[in-house]
Amino acid sequence: MATDAQQACFEAGIKFGSLYHQFAGTPVSPASTRSLEAAMAEAIENQPYCESVTVEIRDDRVADAIDHENGYTELTGSLMDVEMRIDYEGVTVRTRMAMRDGYPLMELVAVEGESEATDGSGTTN
Amino acid sequence: MATDAQQACFEAGIKFGSLYHQFAGTPVSPASTRSLEAAMAEAIENQPYCESVTVEIRDDRVADAIDHENGYTELTGSLMDVEMRIDYEGVTVRTRMAMRDGYPLMELVAVEGESEATDGSGTTN
Amino acid sequence: MATDAQQACFEAGIKFGSLYHQFAGTPVSPASTRSLEAAMAEAIENQPYCESVTVEIRDDRVADAIDHENGYTELTGSLMDVEMRIDYEGVTVRTRMAMRDGYPLMELVAVEGESEATDGSGTTN
Amino acid sequence: MATDAQQACFEAGIKFGSLYHQFAGTPVSPASTRSLEAAMAEAIENQPYCESVTVEIRDDRVADAIDHENGYTELTGSLMDVEMRIDYEGVTVRTRMAMRDGYPLMELVAVEGESEATDGSGTTN
Repeated sequence: MATDAQQACFEAGIKFGSLYHQFAGTPVSPASTRSLEAAMAEAIENQPYCESVTVEIRDDRVADAIDHENGYTELTGSLMDVEMRIDYEGVTVRTRMAMRDGYPLMELVAVEGESEATDGSGTTN
Repeated sequence: MATDAQQACFEAGIKFGSLYHQFAGTPVSPASTRSLEAAMAEAIENQPYCESVTVEIRDDRVADAIDHENGYTELTGSLMDVEMRIDYEGVTVRTRMAMRDGYPLMELVAVEGESEATDGSGTTN
Repeated sequence: MATDAQQACFEAGIKFGSLYHQFAGTPVSPASTRSLEAAMAEAIENQPYCESVTVEIRDDRVADAIDHENGYTELTGSLMDVEMRIDYEGVTVRTRMAMRDGYPLMELVAVEGESEATDGSGTTN
Repeated sequence: MATDAQQACFEAGIKFGSLYHQFAGTPVSPASTRSLEAAMAEAIENQPYCESVTVEIRDDRVADAIDHENGYTELTGSLMDVEMRIDYEGVTVRTRMAMRDGYPLMELVAVEGESEATDGSGTTN
């Protein structure tokens, strides 16, 4: 009943919510941004239909967010840019999270490929 | 470029991924299931376009999963049933997570209402 | 080799780190503070040696932290006060997290009871 | 009022609880273990008094835990060995998490150095 394109968008959303709420709150400093970026991308790429994830944690924003003497902050959406590509039954969905008016916004960038009725099958998380 | 129905499905996926990865791993016992259910539902209902969330943590499955003397286990998808309703620009999406062949599966149950082109605006997490 | 008091302090720290990193990032609004407080306290009270946990999410701080039109924010240490009591082999440890100079600080408030050599046994998380 | 050794053990516990509950539930496969190990270690090493963290996610256990066709599982304590060293005011605490009787156990391995009264100051998370 849902189309392949709708399923693909549902899958894309799952990945975004997963990435955000798994890793938000992680202690991060300019010295640990690269390893966290790699782990986030590779972890989410394990999920079904997730073809590619790129995470860029912005060192400059991390440095700006460090507001106490301990030298680190906690990961939030405002510190990173994320792009993902989901492929589901021939439909490609491109999504990103980036700052809009001061807030991190998750958005669909493109939904490409044919949309046809599916059997409504979903995904394990 | 994305339709309202596609946006609605993307939003629905975000909520599911958020719920799962925010709360998976929480210590849970039969004595704490009700408070955790309530907190999970109310937390996710804060997110944009999320009209209702119901979480049922199955006491019987929690009891079965407690395999050490400490008397608690960690929340996983196999211990709960979840249903959500997302409303986005006149489109209603119903989703659920339930066990399928021994695994928790997140799935679109219904996408109802008209689908028209949108401006691609997304959501903060 | 570690004393009971040291073990008790180790256990107390585990609970604090668990509580913080399990729940930080949870969407929260003034309408959902009570359920989240209850779930956090009851979840962590499941852990070994944890006698009591009180979590007070400050509605006024939550309201102040809501800086966009969606009407919610994400849980961080600055929004809540936490107190815990850990009992380990006759040693009682009292801890709290509260704001100090603008930052949330986890601290030992009191370590009471005898401290003797133990066998170094730990805890499952 | 708490001794330096007790403070050091409290700090050690915070790191362990943080590591566990921040990263438990992360999607993991044999292809993503190395990046996750690195990110976990570097993230927690940002925290105060944390001198070193080593995380070994056991590829063999990950492979055994993959029980569905999607090819990944979720990180739990049973899949990894962790060692940490905390230095606090001249006290060194060594801790580890490893399997004991089928369960992951966080334990104090050694508390070394003098213990004297402190001012009770704690740590931000």
